[in-house]
Amino acid sequence: MHKNQTFKLKRKPKIIGSYTIVGPKEGKGNFGPYFDYVMKNDYFGEKTFEKAERKMIESAVTGVIQNAKLQTKDIDMMIAGDLLNQIISSSYAARAFKFPFLGVYGACSTMAESYAVASVLVDGGYFENVVCCTGSHFSTAERQYRFPLELGNQRPPTSQWTVTGAGASVISLNGDGPCITSVTFGKVVDFGVNDVNNMGAAMAPAARDTLLAHFLNTKTSPNDYDLIITGDLGKLGSEILIDLMEEEGVTLGVNYGDCGQMYYKREQKTLCGASGAGCCATAFNSYIIKKIKEGQYKKVLFLPTGALLSSISTQQGDTIPCVCHAIVIEKE
Amino acid sequence: MHKNQTFKLKRKPKIIGSYTIVGPKEGKGNFGPYFDYVMKNDYFGEKTFEKAERKMIESAVTGVIQNAKLQTKDIDMMIAGDLLNQIISSSYAARAFKFPFLGVYGACSTMAESYAVASVLVDGGYFENVVCCTGSHFSTAERQYRFPLELGNQRPPTSQWTVTGAGASVISLNGDGPCITSVTFGKVVDFGVNDVNNMGAAMAPAARDTLLAHFLNTKTSPNDYDLIITGDLGKLGSEILIDLMEEEGVTLGVNYGDCGQMYYKREQKTLCGASGAGCCATAFNSYIIKKIKEGQYKKVLFLPTGALLSSISTQQGDTIPCVCHAIVIEKE
Repeated sequence: MHKNQTFKLKRKPKIIGSYTIVGPKEGKGNFGPYFDYVMKNDYFGEKTFEKAERKMIESAVTGVIQNAKLQTKDIDMMIAGDLLNQIISSSYAARAFKFPFLGVYGACSTMAESYAVASVLVDGGYFENVVCCTGSHFSTAERQYRFPLELGNQRPPTSQWTVTGAGASVISLNGDGPCITSVTFGKVVDFGVNDVNNMGAAMAPAARDTLLAHFLNTKTSPNDYDLIITGDLGKLGSEILIDLMEEEGVTLGVNYGDCGQMYYKREQKTLCGASGAGCCATAFNSYIIKKIKEGQYKKVLFLPTGALLSSISTQQGDTIPCVCHAIVIEKE
Repeated sequence: MHKNQTFKLKRKPKIIGSYTIVGPKEGKGNFGPYFDYVMKNDYFGEKTFEKAERKMIESAVTGVIQNAKLQTKDIDMMIAGDLLNQIISSSYAARAFKFPFLGVYGACSTMAESYAVASVLVDGGYFENVVCCTGSHFSTAERQYRFPLELGNQRPPTSQWTVTGAGASVISLNGDGPCITSVTFGKVVDFGVNDVNNMGAAMAPAARDTLLAHFLNTKTSPNDYDLIITGDLGKLGSEILIDLMEEEGVTLGVNYGDCGQMYYKREQKTLCGASGAGCCATAFNSYIIKKIKEGQYKKVLFLPTGALLSSISTQQGDTIPCVCHAIVIEKE
C-alpha cells in the first residue's frame, strides 16, 4: 500500500451545482425521475452520434453553471474527459466557453479524477469555481471499442450497456452543497483479463486495491459510510468485488452499491447493467446527490473505476489495465 | 481575457529530476548531445511501434526517478498522457509502478498540463514527489492521425515530423532544481483550420491567446524572460505566432523560440520541423533544463500547444481546436 495515496481536503470544497442529461433509454431506467433532461433520441438534433455526445457535454456544462446560480464569467476552469479517442467530445465542447480547459482521461473513472483535481485546485486556493464534466454515448462507444451497431453482433452475457448521458458538477469553496472531504488516487492494476465484453471482471481488482488503500489510510471501515458506490462494475463485476473484499476480510454489506448494476430496469435487457463514463456521472449528479442533500446519505464513498484499454491494445493482444479513484462526499 | 487563468505558486515547486529518451533520428538532431538515451532503432526491442512507445514512457519514468536520486517508494503519483487513443502508452506504462496514476490529455501541450497539475499538488502540500511524463512516436502518430507509413504518402511542405521520444520530470518541494513559479491555463481556441498537415497554423492562435493572458495577468512583457519557448508550432507556426503577436502590439524578439522549429537539422528533411508531445518534453528536459541550471536562462516561459483533433473529428469535417498552457520556470 502506498503511503500517500490519500489526502484530506481541509477546506472541504463543495459541490454547489449538479446537472445531468441522458438518452431516452436511460430516462426509462431506475434513475429516470432524477435526471435534469432526457433527450428525445440519441442524435440530439445532430448528424452523427459523436456530435451528439459533444453537444451533451456542452449542454451539461451550460446546465450546471445555471444550476449553481453562477454565470460563465464566474467559472475559472473546466475539467473534462470522455471515452472518445483524444477526448474530442470534451475538447470540442470546450470551444463554446471562455474559461480554461484541462483535459483528463481515466475512462469510466473520469468523474472521480476530475473531482479530485478540481478539489485540489479549489481547496488549495488557486481557483474559486471549477466545472467537472464527463459523459459517454452508447453508439459511439460500441463502434469505437467493439463493433459498429450496423453489424448487429450478439452481446455476450457479461457485456454492459454504455450509458448515453453526461453529468456535470461545479466545485467551489463558497455556496452550499455536499462537501468533498478526501481523495484516494488509484494505481493502475492489471488482473490479466482481455475480454472487452467483460469489463466488470477487469475493473473489480482496481476497485479492491483503491478500497483497501482508502480504508487503511483513513482508518475507516465499510460501516463508516452510509453508501459505498462503485461506478460501472455492473452485476458481475460488483459481485466479484464483494468476493475479492471478502477474501481480504472486509465485508461489503447493504450499504454497498454499483451505479452500473442499479442503472437500468430488468426488462431493459442490458445484461450485466450499465457502463461508460456517463454511467456514474449521471447517477451521482442526479439520484445520489439528491439523497445526500435530503440527508438520507450523510457520508458517501464514491469510487468509479476505469478500464484503460483502446482498440489498438486489444488488437495487439494486450490485457486490460484498470484504475479506480475514490472520493468521500459528506453532507455539509 | 479571463480573470483567473493565471496563478502563482507560493512555495515554488522544483524540478528535481529530468530524463529524456529519443529515437535515432532525434539523436542526430540539434538537441542530440543533451539527451540521456538514444535508442538504436524505433522498435526499442518490441514487436510494434505502439509497444515501443509504451516502453519509452516506462523507461523515462524509471530514468527520472533515478536522476532525482529517489526510489520508487518516494514517488506519490505519476501524471502522464500521450497522443495514442485512450493514452494507452501512459496507462500501460503505469502498470509497472506501485504509485497512483493520473491520466491527462492535452495533445502536444501535455507536458505543461502535467507540470501544472503536479505543481498544484506539491505546492498545496498534498503530495511530496510527483513524476510528470509524456512522449510520442513518429510511426504510431502517422498511422493514427494521417496515413500508415506503408502507403508512402508524400508529405506537404507545411507538415511536421512527430518526435520519437519521451521526457519526464520529478516535481517536488524538497531538493534542488529550477522552480515552477506560475501557471497560466489555456482556453480552447479554434481558428477554423482543418488541415491535419498544418498543425502550426491551427495552434498558433491558442499560443497567442495564452501568451496575451499570461502577460496581462502577470504584468510582464517579453523582455522579462530570458527565453519564451513554444512547443511544436514549427517553422511556419512560430512565424504565424510572431505575426499574430505583432498585430496585438507585442514583439517576440530573439528570446523567442519554438522547440519544433529548433529540433532537427536542416538536412534531416522534416519540412516545418518537429511536433508531437515528445517534442517539447524532450527538448525541455534536456537542453533547456541544462541551460537553466547553468544560468544561461534565469526565467523561462514554456508554453506548449496542443491540437485537440482526432481522426474521427477530421473524418466528420470538423476544424481543429487547440489549447496552450504556460509555465514559468526560474533558476532556483
